[in-house]
Amino acid sequence: MGRLEDQFEFIRITDSLKQIFRQTYLHDGSRKENDAEHSWHLALMAVILKEYASGDVDLLHVIIMVLIHDIVEIDAGDTYAYDDKGNATKRERELAAADRIFNILPEDQAKYFRSIWDEFEEGITSEARFAHALDNIQPVMLNDASGAKAWKEHDVKLSQILNRNKRTADGSAQLWQYAKENFIEPNLQKGSVKEDCNME
Amino acid sequence: MGRLEDQFEFIRITDSLKQIFRQTYLHDGSRKENDAEHSWHLALMAVILKEYASGDVDLLHVIIMVLIHDIVEIDAGDTYAYDDKGNATKRERELAAADRIFNILPEDQAKYFRSIWDEFEEGITSEARFAHALDNIQPVMLNDASGAKAWKEHDVKLSQILNRNKRTADGSAQLWQYAKENFIEPNLQKGSVKEDCNME
Repeated sequence: MGRLEDQFEFIRITDSLKQIFRQTYLHDGSRKENDAEHSWHLALMAVILKEYASGDVDLLHVIIMVLIHDIVEIDAGDTYAYDDKGNATKRERELAAADRIFNILPEDQAKYFRSIWDEFEEGITSEARFAHALDNIQPVMLNDASGAKAWKEHDVKLSQILNRNKRTADGSAQLWQYAKENFIEPNLQKGSVKEDCNME
Repeated sequence: MGRLEDQFEFIRITDSLKQIFRQTYLHDGSRKENDAEHSWHLALMAVILKEYASGDVDLLHVIIMVLIHDIVEIDAGDTYAYDDKGNATKRERELAAADRIFNILPEDQAKYFRSIWDEFEEGITSEARFAHALDNIQPVMLNDASGAKAWKEHDVKLSQILNRNKRTADGSAQLWQYAKENFIEPNLQKGSVKEDCNME
């Protein structure tokens, strides 16, 4: 039963993803979202929004990718998109976490999950580009829904949002266009996000 | 853009699944788990534990099933496994919720999600049986990890756990055997679950 024991050890360890909190608030601003909830939401979005992906995507592959993409944060913590200092050391911290956590699994599954996480990090395949588009658009949607609560707290500027999303259209041009028109522009008009550059 | 608007409306509405709390505690007993986290955990378990499913299962189908299986609880609320009174009205409340929530989606996707939810509720296909096995075993694992916290609070007896799990082995005999030996029997020995009948 060694194999199954290792698998359940991984499943129990990853329960901690429910305790890694992001900067984004839930739609009603009542509290911040955690990584497990965020990953569930991305997987659901992948199913619903697959038709807008650039290029052919293997839906199962995208879903597995978004289910595991933040697991390294159990050790490495969440690094806010607009935290320059944190982002400077993020890669190193996350690589060490990937080495430890994925290797709790039996070797074949450890290699499989690691290869999918590496693929996400590289961001080259259609699946990785679509996964990144979802990962970027979901918090933009929640920020809009919550009255720009996290954006206001961090005094986020349009240039920062656009810089963060410079490759989102590579994963889905249609979803990025929708997000700009429906989730970002209204917040420029309301003054919730400072318009320090042109939309593009 | 009507289609995409409906899709994002559904994605925003289902953010509320993060606010539906279950009776099960996280592994460290720090707080109760919510439905979105639970659904993420089941999807991850489906990927890792697929090799133990009884019969051939379509992994993508199982994952979509567990991602959406609790969405009706946004309206209907969580009904504790051992709440007889709540379970008497559960079906009616959940059917009304399914009618409202899935129909926020464009018609083709509403029908698709509803058919998968109906399939889960019927529990006949290999995919539905495996999804139910995961849905039953995950809280048993967390109960064991948290020192039987929810079981003790509700004074849960072995007969109730076995009754709740009478079809779990149909989805995976190996996982149910593992759960009995590793998550339930130790709690009988510790007296955390009252042994009011034989294991079987």
